[in-house]
Amino acid sequence: MVQRKLQVAVSGLGRMGARHALHFLNLTPRAELVAAFTPEPSEVAWGRQHLEPSGCTIYTDYDEMLKHPGLEAVVVATATTVHAEQSIKAIKADLHVLCEKPLSTSVEMSQAVVDAAKAKPHLKVLCGFSRRFDTSYREAWERMDSGSIGRPAIFRSQTCDKLDPSGFFVDYAQYSGGIFVDCNIHDIDLALWYFGQDSVVKSVMAVGITAVQPELRKHKDVDNGVGVVEFWGGKIAYFYSSRMMAAGQHDMTEIIGTEGKLSVNANPMGSLVEMSEASGIRREIPPHYYGRFREAFVTEANEFTAACLDDTKLPFKLSGAVQAVKIGCALQESLNSGRKIYFDETGRRVEKAGL
Amino acid sequence: MVQRKLQVAVSGLGRMGARHALHFLNLTPRAELVAAFTPEPSEVAWGRQHLEPSGCTIYTDYDEMLKHPGLEAVVVATATTVHAEQSIKAIKADLHVLCEKPLSTSVEMSQAVVDAAKAKPHLKVLCGFSRRFDTSYREAWERMDSGSIGRPAIFRSQTCDKLDPSGFFVDYAQYSGGIFVDCNIHDIDLALWYFGQDSVVKSVMAVGITAVQPELRKHKDVDNGVGVVEFWGGKIAYFYSSRMMAAGQHDMTEIIGTEGKLSVNANPMGSLVEMSEASGIRREIPPHYYGRFREAFVTEANEFTAACLDDTKLPFKLSGAVQAVKIGCALQESLNSGRKIYFDETGRRVEKAGL
Amino acid sequence: MVQRKLQVAVSGLGRMGARHALHFLNLTPRAELVAAFTPEPSEVAWGRQHLEPSGCTIYTDYDEMLKHPGLEAVVVATATTVHAEQSIKAIKADLHVLCEKPLSTSVEMSQAVVDAAKAKPHLKVLCGFSRRFDTSYREAWERMDSGSIGRPAIFRSQTCDKLDPSGFFVDYAQYSGGIFVDCNIHDIDLALWYFGQDSVVKSVMAVGITAVQPELRKHKDVDNGVGVVEFWGGKIAYFYSSRMMAAGQHDMTEIIGTEGKLSVNANPMGSLVEMSEASGIRREIPPHYYGRFREAFVTEANEFTAACLDDTKLPFKLSGAVQAVKIGCALQESLNSGRKIYFDETGRRVEKAGL
Amino acid sequence: MVQRKLQVAVSGLGRMGARHALHFLNLTPRAELVAAFTPEPSEVAWGRQHLEPSGCTIYTDYDEMLKHPGLEAVVVATATTVHAEQSIKAIKADLHVLCEKPLSTSVEMSQAVVDAAKAKPHLKVLCGFSRRFDTSYREAWERMDSGSIGRPAIFRSQTCDKLDPSGFFVDYAQYSGGIFVDCNIHDIDLALWYFGQDSVVKSVMAVGITAVQPELRKHKDVDNGVGVVEFWGGKIAYFYSSRMMAAGQHDMTEIIGTEGKLSVNANPMGSLVEMSEASGIRREIPPHYYGRFREAFVTEANEFTAACLDDTKLPFKLSGAVQAVKIGCALQESLNSGRKIYFDETGRRVEKAGL
Repeated sequence: MVQRKLQVAVSGLGRMGARHALHFLNLTPRAELVAAFTPEPSEVAWGRQHLEPSGCTIYTDYDEMLKHPGLEAVVVATATTVHAEQSIKAIKADLHVLCEKPLSTSVEMSQAVVDAAKAKPHLKVLCGFSRRFDTSYREAWERMDSGSIGRPAIFRSQTCDKLDPSGFFVDYAQYSGGIFVDCNIHDIDLALWYFGQDSVVKSVMAVGITAVQPELRKHKDVDNGVGVVEFWGGKIAYFYSSRMMAAGQHDMTEIIGTEGKLSVNANPMGSLVEMSEASGIRREIPPHYYGRFREAFVTEANEFTAACLDDTKLPFKLSGAVQAVKIGCALQESLNSGRKIYFDETGRRVEKAGL
Repeated sequence: MVQRKLQVAVSGLGRMGARHALHFLNLTPRAELVAAFTPEPSEVAWGRQHLEPSGCTIYTDYDEMLKHPGLEAVVVATATTVHAEQSIKAIKADLHVLCEKPLSTSVEMSQAVVDAAKAKPHLKVLCGFSRRFDTSYREAWERMDSGSIGRPAIFRSQTCDKLDPSGFFVDYAQYSGGIFVDCNIHDIDLALWYFGQDSVVKSVMAVGITAVQPELRKHKDVDNGVGVVEFWGGKIAYFYSSRMMAAGQHDMTEIIGTEGKLSVNANPMGSLVEMSEASGIRREIPPHYYGRFREAFVTEANEFTAACLDDTKLPFKLSGAVQAVKIGCALQESLNSGRKIYFDETGRRVEKAGL
Repeated sequence: MVQRKLQVAVSGLGRMGARHALHFLNLTPRAELVAAFTPEPSEVAWGRQHLEPSGCTIYTDYDEMLKHPGLEAVVVATATTVHAEQSIKAIKADLHVLCEKPLSTSVEMSQAVVDAAKAKPHLKVLCGFSRRFDTSYREAWERMDSGSIGRPAIFRSQTCDKLDPSGFFVDYAQYSGGIFVDCNIHDIDLALWYFGQDSVVKSVMAVGITAVQPELRKHKDVDNGVGVVEFWGGKIAYFYSSRMMAAGQHDMTEIIGTEGKLSVNANPMGSLVEMSEASGIRREIPPHYYGRFREAFVTEANEFTAACLDDTKLPFKLSGAVQAVKIGCALQESLNSGRKIYFDETGRRVEKAGL
Repeated sequence: MVQRKLQVAVSGLGRMGARHALHFLNLTPRAELVAAFTPEPSEVAWGRQHLEPSGCTIYTDYDEMLKHPGLEAVVVATATTVHAEQSIKAIKADLHVLCEKPLSTSVEMSQAVVDAAKAKPHLKVLCGFSRRFDTSYREAWERMDSGSIGRPAIFRSQTCDKLDPSGFFVDYAQYSGGIFVDCNIHDIDLALWYFGQDSVVKSVMAVGITAVQPELRKHKDVDNGVGVVEFWGGKIAYFYSSRMMAAGQHDMTEIIGTEGKLSVNANPMGSLVEMSEASGIRREIPPHYYGRFREAFVTEANEFTAACLDDTKLPFKLSGAVQAVKIGCALQESLNSGRKIYFDETGRRVEKAGL
């Protein structure tokens, strides 16, 4: 008996959407890519060339795509601004959903996705925090969980993009929610993973500068940000994000416990080649996050597929994605107000007594 | 129009055969695994469970498998002793062949495969030197080829296995051809790749010891070998192979040129995690070659498939595999005789004048 | 003609004082250690054994020592609480001074040392920020200064001590001024060096926890602190300090500019030995700061000596030491109040408008 | 009571001689540099400027220098060709000797130094194998000696100089004894240290090329050499030496045992600075051996001094230096004859039976 394959559609065939489509098409044996949606003519053309020959129907109307016969799951990989809306529609159409991060740049909209998912408990709804599927991050988590570093107390994490002088990041900033919501959302999600999903934020403080792209200020954004998050119970996470790395993408994390430290990608390498030259010894690093996390995305596709087919648990809860957006938005607000933001032990926002 | 897929069979479902089968089944979009052969009951059982549900027929007779309707290509991944025979049979049955390395532990048998392939120039016949498909080795080659290290002159390469106290390597030694044919064959092949496939060997010398498994001597083998190969034209390759690494698999290579050096995997890492502990800073390394080269095997499967379907050139010539076996066998002979072996400028063996 | 040697005394023969004494005795060719002061009987005994045989007089009264015939310079290496007082006395006695960092835990007292030095412009008065004498920090500074990373914008630096379960750090906390004044003072000084000594602080924010030594709270201190300092003109420095590293001392720094990044000691090593073991590949790191900075201390002794003898400029101005203490104290205050602290463009403290 | 200082003279004020002189002058507290010899006018001038003001007498006649009143020890740092003669003269004059490596490029002359020393057992006679005084090599030895890698079996070591296009190495080759005697002598000495000073050589084989300086052939030398030495009892050492490294000096060593591996300087660094640039991440390495081994030379000076003053044992026996030269010369001979050289279990040279 040949095994049944999950019938999957991808919404959005931009940079990351196209990759998701190819992952489900070629590298997810238990899934079948049956449909894709994009309103962009150039993306439609790409889909006709690369997806249609394998039996995937290209739609230019999202609602039509949702009606594709036999469709079981949708990957939402459009612009962040429509993540929530499309996810909710798919859920209402009784489809499993893998939504790219973040669910939304607004806490309320993110929560709306969670609420929609709660109403359909038989569906799998996953927010695509790709690092959760990365072998090294998982290894680090397991080492921590086994007690190898004692009690985790300090968390440092950065998401640093290669300098892109084209101005891409300036345009992008109007939709991205800002550097803390767009970049550090990954690091915040990791902090919640490693410190425990029920960690309660105590204070948030962020600063930032526009070192290379002053036009970012018009979108209330920066190209380098430093944020510090205190959690109740004696834990601190601090973050750095940047859009001006010279060498390439450098995302890294340290989890520091009472008895040891785990670091992930402290020494990035694009390959295993080192070059000895007149100017010294050199290695190159991946230019973009996909060079670092490609395998994680493929694992994400396969695990999402397996959870849908076998009705097994997803590796993490959707509600954490709201918590991550909440912290990201608070950091972005602190960046712009210049003020520290305080929360009580239930996570409710408070004014600092006595100020 | 849905694209045609290459109809592939795998011969042998042992450790590596099973991996090849899964690569063609799940990770080679343009191929379809339609048949597998193994005489081993336990492997048959594995195949029935993991391959048959996806439409793959399991054979216990190799010749029968060759007759599988529509079959176009065979992956030969049985014991080294039958590599050549099975490859030749498949070629004669007008099938493309991907044969695991080495073609044979004998130069003559290896040459017989090449001769069979020559008689069928429309077929793709590939010897599975997996490192040729590895991203890092390819990057190093391209850097060298672009002149970044000047003229390559010295080549150092090692294949070092994790210590296996089970005695596996002792049994294995009766069929493997010896450590220089089994392990360093990869390094020899790399030397021929980087120095040029037409490099002519000038002398060969090897020594070795049995540091952990003295029983290897009964199969004229060792657990640690050092070999030096001179090539005409002023080039030297030197090799190390070992069966007693404590930390795991450590295969590495240096290509040293007149203006620089390239190293591949000088600092092995099993993941991107580093651990800071009371005893220092530690990283783990892959225990086995598959942990290092998995991606290369998948690329091999995909490129072999594409070459068969599109009738394009394979990335390297089959005849080089004979040259590699010739050098490996000479090293093994030198190890056992204690003598240096000399070749003239045409590669023919000679006695050193004046001895 | 045999060259004249600087006549030097060391005040304090504790851990670091004893080292200074030996550096001046054995590794500073142009200096002669002629006197040492300590009120501690055990330190007197050590001095009698190790210094007296080489012609160094041991004093138990600081003022007496200052009158040692021919004395030209004093190294103040006593407890931080008397740094300023002893330095001022020595300056008033017309002696050159090398004072261990910090000048004082109070901004006012630090300023008093600077004022005393200003009144005697012919004297060399140096605050012993050892990292300023470290080869690697100097190399990084020169690379930055030559424009190799564009304009420096983000500075990250940490001073992390090995866990000392003896309770040493708890006792020490009553005098140290707190973790930001004791540990991060180095990182603050580096930030001022790399960003420019005239950088004006804009805001300061710190948080901290007591992960391993809760008793620190009684001295208003923590064992892990994170601090963020904004400078006017678009520069950010962020710091981490810790008393609970498992592997050893790990002090490191990154200077991130618009065109590149310099890191100092990102990968600490106690020696050049790496160990491949069943548990992986491991290196050890120095247990204490002296293992990392010994050479810098020796360079400091030699350069201080040369500046005194030759009446040449010291490598950096004393006034910066006050600025470093000011920032350190503000971080410590922010840690304890939980509030962010703001400064105007002249560096004067202000309340954030509108709060 | 002020401690007595060893009265030391340095013979030769060339590159390394001048360094020895400064080490004894400035960094060896228990020694006093009282005399120096050089026939070279430019070196005399240097000595007058840098040594004489500190009370060191400059001689242009070696025999005169030996008569310097109160002289106790001589450091022989002239050209290799006169090492042995000067050492023997000094021994006969009843002086302790620290002779730069190698004692001689001839086995007989080296033995003559050992014989002279044997006749004066109260003298300390040391061959300056600087790596024996290096912290990292010592740490590796202690780890090995404590059993951490099981039984050592394979030893790999390289001495690789930065490319010097000036032709220096060609001129130098007429006196150096060849690359195996000049460079790999260090590695051979290390092999004897780690494998045991009484290890008996079983066979020797070397090959080499002139990749960058073909003129070396007229001095029977090469710019890249690979040598393999078998020892009786199942141990192998293999060596690489080169004069064409692009990045700088890279001397490294691996000791591979039945339960682990120790590597020394597998990842060379000139400083603790790493640079992230558009072309990747880069570190520089020391251009010359002195950048790597400066500390070892200083330790050598201090330990030699202490052994002379306190009449304690030197860290290793002089006779090993003869064994190292013997192996180095055999490698050089094998390089030039193209033949493998055999020794019986007493270390006597034999023809391979049956050839």
